[in-house]
Amino acid sequence: MTPLAGLRILDLSRVLACPFASMILAELGAEVIKVEQPGAGDETRGFEPFAQGADGETVSGYFMACNRAKRSITVNLRHPEGIAIIRALAQQSDALVENFPVGTLKRRGLDWASLHPIAPRLVMLSCTGFGQTGPYAKRKGYDTVFQAMGGLMSLTGERGGGPVKPGLPVADLTSGLWAAIALLAALRGRDATGQGAHVDLSMLEGQVSLLTIAAARFFALGEVPPRLGTEHPGRVPTASFRCADGRFLHITASDQHWAPLCRALGLPDDPSLATNAARLVAREHVMAMLTAALAGMTRAQAVAALDAVDVPNGPVLALDEVLADPHVVARGAVQAFDDPVLGSFPSLRLPFRFDGFDDPQATTRPPSLGEHTDAILGGLGYNHARIAALRAEGAI
Amino acid sequence: MTPLAGLRILDLSRVLACPFASMILAELGAEVIKVEQPGAGDETRGFEPFAQGADGETVSGYFMACNRAKRSITVNLRHPEGIAIIRALAQQSDALVENFPVGTLKRRGLDWASLHPIAPRLVMLSCTGFGQTGPYAKRKGYDTVFQAMGGLMSLTGERGGGPVKPGLPVADLTSGLWAAIALLAALRGRDATGQGAHVDLSMLEGQVSLLTIAAARFFALGEVPPRLGTEHPGRVPTASFRCADGRFLHITASDQHWAPLCRALGLPDDPSLATNAARLVAREHVMAMLTAALAGMTRAQAVAALDAVDVPNGPVLALDEVLADPHVVARGAVQAFDDPVLGSFPSLRLPFRFDGFDDPQATTRPPSLGEHTDAILGGLGYNHARIAALRAEGAI
Repeated sequence: MTPLAGLRILDLSRVLACPFASMILAELGAEVIKVEQPGAGDETRGFEPFAQGADGETVSGYFMACNRAKRSITVNLRHPEGIAIIRALAQQSDALVENFPVGTLKRRGLDWASLHPIAPRLVMLSCTGFGQTGPYAKRKGYDTVFQAMGGLMSLTGERGGGPVKPGLPVADLTSGLWAAIALLAALRGRDATGQGAHVDLSMLEGQVSLLTIAAARFFALGEVPPRLGTEHPGRVPTASFRCADGRFLHITASDQHWAPLCRALGLPDDPSLATNAARLVAREHVMAMLTAALAGMTRAQAVAALDAVDVPNGPVLALDEVLADPHVVARGAVQAFDDPVLGSFPSLRLPFRFDGFDDPQATTRPPSLGEHTDAILGGLGYNHARIAALRAEGAI
Repeated sequence: MTPLAGLRILDLSRVLACPFASMILAELGAEVIKVEQPGAGDETRGFEPFAQGADGETVSGYFMACNRAKRSITVNLRHPEGIAIIRALAQQSDALVENFPVGTLKRRGLDWASLHPIAPRLVMLSCTGFGQTGPYAKRKGYDTVFQAMGGLMSLTGERGGGPVKPGLPVADLTSGLWAAIALLAALRGRDATGQGAHVDLSMLEGQVSLLTIAAARFFALGEVPPRLGTEHPGRVPTASFRCADGRFLHITASDQHWAPLCRALGLPDDPSLATNAARLVAREHVMAMLTAALAGMTRAQAVAALDAVDVPNGPVLALDEVLADPHVVARGAVQAFDDPVLGSFPSLRLPFRFDGFDDPQATTRPPSLGEHTDAILGGLGYNHARIAALRAEGAI
């Protein structure tokens, strides 16, 4: 029993943001039909990193990370029969997701204005770099461009250094999360009114919406937060420190932690620094004190001393350390699926568990290209001869 | 007409992740009742940055960024009558959100096991640092600790430098997005089955789930991606470059962009570098060539040259530049609400627009502490005398 059982999502999207969104919905129980171009399919099937099977055949790790638990149908959107197939599937679906450049689907008779009359209950989400309107609507965009234009890159970096890109495709991933929210919300509204809706999601705005606390600083004080390495513009100390063994430890301490922190690190507990406001003014001094103290302890020593007095801290873990962390392992955050080429291959699970529904699992492998074409077309009433003809014509 | 009209969410959460989630749902039309501690309320009401009104009174910009469009009731969860109020409200709500440390609500008779029997249709989401189970379940966590322990901080930084924290509370914000997804999904399942459910959301796992493509590199190749400044581990060139005027420009080019990129920058179009695979091997050489070329052009010159040949690029904008960007302004991404202390105060809108529902707006101000206490208790049948007595007893 899954929360999204019975929901059917037709997914025309490619690459990362929307495929990530539809994978989330698939692992919550929705049936997701991934529509791919005949021949190559989603271009990420050709994106590195490639995992190699025992016989030398390779599979894209990129594709596998965002397409678990879906069905794949190949459809040529430039062929009239291909367009007819999408229109028929849209009439049998609850939602359609797409991330084509603005105007592409209109030319194919597959935009909202064309589909809403024939599929009045359909929710359609269009995810583009800059949204369907506005001066940049026709510009193409990419994750790193949104990180640049959305402000995150300029906020990230060493003190006095240049901008730095967060080491994950944060704009794509958060746009995927926003897309999932918008779809689920619109579907709830659809259920209430019986009428579908169109969602215009802008990836740039997805980033602007996340500026929240940083924007609050600008709105409240007119300040643009500087780049601060691992420090926090409004709280001291919140930073990562290099320990004697070269490992980094992150510490974040509120007022009630200040005295215990000082004691744990063998520092004088200066009462004039008891408030965050005072420590903000004395940021350099506080950071220098703590930096010197941590440089004299191994990370394990520091963690033990801080845990003993309940000062919040956490090791700065490398990716392989995260995935092997005892808690991450105990929670089952890493699972594996069986792949025909690779055998068992690891994957990352959604971050929540249910009481009342089956837990999301990351154990259903991504589809091979067009794996479900015949079955899905069969469901639309196409027989074997017709499917063979469509294939010969290049429609599927 | 909003997509979540008719939904009532009882929000016992504090600080950032879950308040951000419930604000999203509020601006999509849900009624969100924010339960706050009498006296101080959500602790972020006392968090800087503070905006100052004309009479010198201050309001937290932090609080305002995450609590628009909610109603506020003060309830003392340590008082038996306060607990009775929450139980009564839970029976009239569709969902309850909380982020207390594991075990706190059980002691008050407000955990899932206590509420499910009296509110069988209620969906309850518990958001904690590490989830309800596992070896770290009792540890407290904070955004920066999850960025450290979840791998993002170690993936972010200059080549050869130390870890850097992305300049936004990415772990809190994305946990909020995950929370909104989990709630909406569980509510859909609840509508189908008639039975509520409990969601156990782990903020650390929220970060682990986002490792996606970085984890794919580890799963496929055994490689831990290095820190690369603004570069990409698998694609060259994708990086930000310092232009002659000191401004930074981000460029991301696929194979089809390579020759136009070289021409636009006045560089020889070396066919041996036509593929990403070749450029990955020659990363240092390619980056040096482009760095030198961009250092000789102003950012405006470079943008004009690259736009002319359709090479994807975007300026690295500071926060104030983002908020004043013509496209961001044209899309109405920044709105304002009327605040009794501050007058008109700016705010950031959700990143999507609807056709079929009213667009989300960021124009409904956050509540003052306990602003709706009397009205909400009135709705439960408490009369004025009883409310006054509860207030005198410290229950509200």
